[in-house]
Amino acid sequence: MEQQFTLSTRARTQFIEITERVQEAVRGSGIRSGVARVFVPHTTAGVTINENADPSVVRDILATLDRLVPQDGSYDHSEGNSPAHVKASLMGFCQTVFVEQGKLLLGTWQGIYLCEFDGPRTRRVVVRVDSDER
Amino acid sequence: MEQQFTLSTRARTQFIEITERVQEAVRGSGIRSGVARVFVPHTTAGVTINENADPSVVRDILATLDRLVPQDGSYDHSEGNSPAHVKASLMGFCQTVFVEQGKLLLGTWQGIYLCEFDGPRTRRVVVRVDSDER
Amino acid sequence: MEQQFTLSTRARTQFIEITERVQEAVRGSGIRSGVARVFVPHTTAGVTINENADPSVVRDILATLDRLVPQDGSYDHSEGNSPAHVKASLMGFCQTVFVEQGKLLLGTWQGIYLCEFDGPRTRRVVVRVDSDER
Repeated sequence: MEQQFTLSTRARTQFIEITERVQEAVRGSGIRSGVARVFVPHTTAGVTINENADPSVVRDILATLDRLVPQDGSYDHSEGNSPAHVKASLMGFCQTVFVEQGKLLLGTWQGIYLCEFDGPRTRRVVVRVDSDER
Repeated sequence: MEQQFTLSTRARTQFIEITERVQEAVRGSGIRSGVARVFVPHTTAGVTINENADPSVVRDILATLDRLVPQDGSYDHSEGNSPAHVKASLMGFCQTVFVEQGKLLLGTWQGIYLCEFDGPRTRRVVVRVDSDER
Repeated sequence: MEQQFTLSTRARTQFIEITERVQEAVRGSGIRSGVARVFVPHTTAGVTINENADPSVVRDILATLDRLVPQDGSYDHSEGNSPAHVKASLMGFCQTVFVEQGKLLLGTWQGIYLCEFDGPRTRRVVVRVDSDER
């Protein structure tokens, strides 16, 4: 079953760590062993995994994406948020993390991030945990 | 069980919306609740999700990828389609979408796109729907 | 159940094909039909799929990523490996491949690659195979 939560972003582009929220969803599912999937039902926001120890890492990712797909570039789409659409596809809309003993099996430095590219907005995150116990 | 369909692309680079085809595969599976996965068994085509309301969005994504990974850049691979290989890895080869009440749980603006980067060609798309009903 | 293996990379950036290792994990699982997922629990290495016939393809992907996210660019993160973090998020941390008759359902030219972006190091790869047999 899906669980959802929403969060409010505060800038045009921003990574917000959601690892704890996803872990809560795993706990809420009662599932001890299986797979958690985090899906973002948007087209100008995505989801990725990256380092959660030093916040300069996600700042560097955001800055690099801004350099590669600049806000003031030349785009057809009239809403002015084409860079956000491109960046969202580059990061992706779904991340998969294994679950063992009720916990997300992330690496030491890994955190899960909602990637806002056209904020500030309210965003939805949908989490699904599937058990491998038969 | 996998279901497959093929489609013919008409340009070197092109996004073709396949949401309806994937939804048909979900219907064909008879599964009401679970997960659908869309896999592209190629190395110069990928699959992504993005806005399906205004076609200028996918044109902007294609144009941005062409600017970042130009067709006339300098590459080792002698077949001339290295940019297509790079772009396919940037977009990815598998998209996951949840299924509820027999329907793909996509966001309001989300569509699923086959990403052709080395066409025109005939491409295969493999869809797998797994039920969470035990 | 997860299966793991480690491998030693030999350069700062390198793609190492792991298709055979993943296929071994599928064999080890005894599962004939289902889904294999390959997860990399790192933040400066990722996993992608691409052509395994001509090694110049993955060299071109590495070179293009180096051009887009240069090692000598300007970054905040003091460890000097910000480009590796960006590239890992661009490639992704999990790949999904279907399994039929005990074999990975890859396309003719597809291989699965560990993407090292901050080596040389020892890297872990976690494989999970889920059966659809009830």
